[in-house]
Amino acid sequence: MKRSERLVDMTKYLMERPHTLISLPFFVKRYGAAKSSISEDLAILKHTLAANQDGILETVAGAAGGVRYVPYLGKNHVKRYLTDLSSRIEDSQRILAGGFVYLSDILDDPQDLRQIGKLIATRYAYSKIDVVMTVETKGISLAQAVARYLNVPFVIARKQSKVTEGATVSVNYISSSIDRVSKMELPTRALKNNSNVLIVDDFMKAGGTLTGMEELTKEFNSNVAGTCVLCEADFDKNKLIEGYLSLVKISRIDTTKRIILAEPGNFVAHTDFSRFQ
Amino acid sequence: MKRSERLVDMTKYLMERPHTLISLPFFVKRYGAAKSSISEDLAILKHTLAANQDGILETVAGAAGGVRYVPYLGKNHVKRYLTDLSSRIEDSQRILAGGFVYLSDILDDPQDLRQIGKLIATRYAYSKIDVVMTVETKGISLAQAVARYLNVPFVIARKQSKVTEGATVSVNYISSSIDRVSKMELPTRALKNNSNVLIVDDFMKAGGTLTGMEELTKEFNSNVAGTCVLCEADFDKNKLIEGYLSLVKISRIDTTKRIILAEPGNFVAHTDFSRFQ
Repeated sequence: MKRSERLVDMTKYLMERPHTLISLPFFVKRYGAAKSSISEDLAILKHTLAANQDGILETVAGAAGGVRYVPYLGKNHVKRYLTDLSSRIEDSQRILAGGFVYLSDILDDPQDLRQIGKLIATRYAYSKIDVVMTVETKGISLAQAVARYLNVPFVIARKQSKVTEGATVSVNYISSSIDRVSKMELPTRALKNNSNVLIVDDFMKAGGTLTGMEELTKEFNSNVAGTCVLCEADFDKNKLIEGYLSLVKISRIDTTKRIILAEPGNFVAHTDFSRFQ
Repeated sequence: MKRSERLVDMTKYLMERPHTLISLPFFVKRYGAAKSSISEDLAILKHTLAANQDGILETVAGAAGGVRYVPYLGKNHVKRYLTDLSSRIEDSQRILAGGFVYLSDILDDPQDLRQIGKLIATRYAYSKIDVVMTVETKGISLAQAVARYLNVPFVIARKQSKVTEGATVSVNYISSSIDRVSKMELPTRALKNNSNVLIVDDFMKAGGTLTGMEELTKEFNSNVAGTCVLCEADFDKNKLIEGYLSLVKISRIDTTKRIILAEPGNFVAHTDFSRFQ
């Protein structure tokens, strides 16, 4: 196979398997090419990804070595996307009763999910995440998008028990938007003990739902490696949680005057983009 | 930019935007290369995808022309995956009370979702799908995976109303597993009239839930372009629906003897793979 064909196939192969170590002998066999040619191919791939600040090709030396594609966006890509996203969220038609915001068009769009997934996966690319957790229903597409780029499973906590999941572990949490104690649960077989968990959700007001997922994580003797939400309602000042990241911060919703103000959240300030320097 | 670098970037660019027409002048400008060079690049890409029976690069001639990447798997890839998937489902630990089957490990795994999404997107690649529909909760990851490869939005029907979605349209349907009339609904702004809808779900017994989604589609003056489920329980003979496709057929579940039998469903027989001939 020619270099040009190898490069097309290799790019596709690696992109479909993020964070997976692929040995050089695998490519040598797949393409019937010399190891030195494969090394040159990979150098081209690495260089091209880096030039666009969109992806890192990591080389792992030694007998058990190989290459690994890490989805990773440069700072400018992230800032540009979050500025655009914030301005799209500043649309009065999104305002719903009770200070909620319609976001389904973003959470159901493959191109937005690709950007958001890659962006959050950049932040946690080197955090050794084992699993992404969210709670039904609207956080699911976000969790799946992040899980795709970290190439780990995602688990969905539920607010009601389903017969199709078997035994579950449940916790109570304060749901501040309805101001009462609620319950969420996870199938016992969905999460292994000692997992490193990334919690994501679509919308955060006081953060009660996020505390529920933290509780669930503890019940499985696991560790919260990070918490990241798509939108944070900054006007709800009584936060029940600390140390979370938000992509977008909604600073004001006026349901009477039909005004919604949004800006990029604290995500960029708390993300280390230095792998591209 | 050199051909080798262009090919890496072009592969990545097209793969991230399935079913999207990209004009040749766009690539000419992006790479500062001659149109003839870009055409040669694209021919290499097309040839390499076809050789692996994993993706089609379509060329659209004329002033408004360009190229389009269509995720499309060859028959052997599909058969191999479905055989493997069926044998993984034949695991007695999956049997839950009430003749249900634990599938969350498959529906939450990025690599399975990639294969399943691409596979269903192959079947409907030329059906002009506008939107993928499913019902909460477990069909969501499936819908998202298919939507990613068709590059269209997906919508989620709900069994309970949420305050964060605004106005909704609701329908009644017979939920045969609990043998009563249930309700599902969709936000009015989630689906445009005259849409071509692909309905997907994770598990089908009699098909009551699918009839609900068909009803919803009609309420939005839209058309059901196809219906596809991951698993069909073939032992439930009183089907409420016709013309659906299934990836896997579960022919027997014996909860006492802990036996579950599965095989590939009718998907392959009803899919035209001739685009690769």
